[in-house]
Amino acid sequence: MHLKAPEHQVAGHIAKDGKPGPLVDDKGRFFKPLQGDSRGEIEVKFYESFSSNTEVPDHIRRYFPVYHGTQAVEGSDGATMIVLENLLSKYSKPSVMDVKMGSRTWYPEASEEYIQKCLRKDARSTTVSSGFRISGFEVFDHRELSFWKPDRKLLNGIKVDGVRVALRKFVSSNTLSDTSSKPDSAFASSVYGGSNGILTQLLELKTWFENQTFYHFNSCSILIIYENEAINDNGARAQVKLVDFAHVHDGNGVIDHNFLGGLCSFINFVRDILQSVDESTEN
Amino acid sequence: MHLKAPEHQVAGHIAKDGKPGPLVDDKGRFFKPLQGDSRGEIEVKFYESFSSNTEVPDHIRRYFPVYHGTQAVEGSDGATMIVLENLLSKYSKPSVMDVKMGSRTWYPEASEEYIQKCLRKDARSTTVSSGFRISGFEVFDHRELSFWKPDRKLLNGIKVDGVRVALRKFVSSNTLSDTSSKPDSAFASSVYGGSNGILTQLLELKTWFENQTFYHFNSCSILIIYENEAINDNGARAQVKLVDFAHVHDGNGVIDHNFLGGLCSFINFVRDILQSVDESTEN
Repeated sequence: MHLKAPEHQVAGHIAKDGKPGPLVDDKGRFFKPLQGDSRGEIEVKFYESFSSNTEVPDHIRRYFPVYHGTQAVEGSDGATMIVLENLLSKYSKPSVMDVKMGSRTWYPEASEEYIQKCLRKDARSTTVSSGFRISGFEVFDHRELSFWKPDRKLLNGIKVDGVRVALRKFVSSNTLSDTSSKPDSAFASSVYGGSNGILTQLLELKTWFENQTFYHFNSCSILIIYENEAINDNGARAQVKLVDFAHVHDGNGVIDHNFLGGLCSFINFVRDILQSVDESTEN
Repeated sequence: MHLKAPEHQVAGHIAKDGKPGPLVDDKGRFFKPLQGDSRGEIEVKFYESFSSNTEVPDHIRRYFPVYHGTQAVEGSDGATMIVLENLLSKYSKPSVMDVKMGSRTWYPEASEEYIQKCLRKDARSTTVSSGFRISGFEVFDHRELSFWKPDRKLLNGIKVDGVRVALRKFVSSNTLSDTSSKPDSAFASSVYGGSNGILTQLLELKTWFENQTFYHFNSCSILIIYENEAINDNGARAQVKLVDFAHVHDGNGVIDHNFLGGLCSFINFVRDILQSVDESTEN
């Protein structure tokens, strides 16, 4: 089995200080190292529960990575990994954004220290103000014909206006590293809009979150993916996926109002961009 | 002008330590003392803004008390009061519940001390877990022919299951002080259900909150009111009203995801009760 580091990781843990990072094979699978503490355990428990939960409808299941169990991986010091669908394996030039959902990333059962750490990060970022934060993104630059990724530290400091710019940059065709030019939002309609676009998918997820009381997706992310290769001929193949379930808890009959509120807010940001693009086309 | 203390106040400030409490007159007006610090100022600013905001649709305006300006009131040491519609003046035997909305009652601009105080209260109550907490309620007891109000300290300590019981008690006809008998939810269909019921009104509010970015209703409450006099003949005259705007902030183009998430959660609690009442009628 030939494994290598994934090409387009925009957020989350990477190989560092001797700890293994995530790996991919050439058969469309993604290997995520099991985090040593309770987080790994919780994530496996979630995937086991979710993949056997017959009350999750199929049209919702497609927003989650397919789960292939766990496996000890040679060459990574025999570390146990969660084996998932590689969400990017069928993309040639993907643009990817990681959006951490919710207006809080902590939960009452956590330690006081953990809560305070999360709180500080939530208040500094747009988590508290907007109900989500952009954890990272990578865009294919159609001028430079290469991938562009903003500095993670710069991204951590952005406020609501910065989020608006980032969501436009993510669907723009003009040079992205040039901060003086306004993002042209050239792909907004084909990525965010349309019957297969991001907005439609987010609204479908919203309907589910208004009713589902199985899981509370604390500190979970939405990945947004689209294809840049031949985007004008073949369409954007835009996809929403939920990832990172190391802090998922039982819903105990209560909906995940924290995720849902953030999702509704994110939907409004996306809708605003689509609206302004429509207006500028009309003029 | 003859003023007296309101009969059915279930939460909020009362006359204490020489400070004036709220008053009502016999012309359907409610006088709320202006809180001395920035809170009074913010509440007046909100009512001024809201009552002149032409972008608020009429079908939403009816969920807010009518605002009649401010007035210095004699006999209350000349204290300035906000003059509002008395929401209960047209009810003879009202049951009233105050539900404080949102999974947090603080906001980033507040002082560290205020944030930590709110956080502790939010975590102890159902605010963090359920996205709202019941601040108080008073029910007309059809057996005892008198009003019954749970002890506020007991109410502060309830968890999710306690919320479910309280929401059933609120629409029950059997003796309420008797904790051994199960609430019969006799009025659930006429109060929570139907085209004029609480659920319909909450869903209408939800649609507005999915789009409105004018106001963030931090620490705001929903009042639920219905009439017990001749309830079986005349219907319940159920009403939802928003109150307490001393911490409202400008939305800055972002929806109030904190209120909205809590509202969606509350809607689910109400829907659960209606569903279980339907099921027990079918059997």
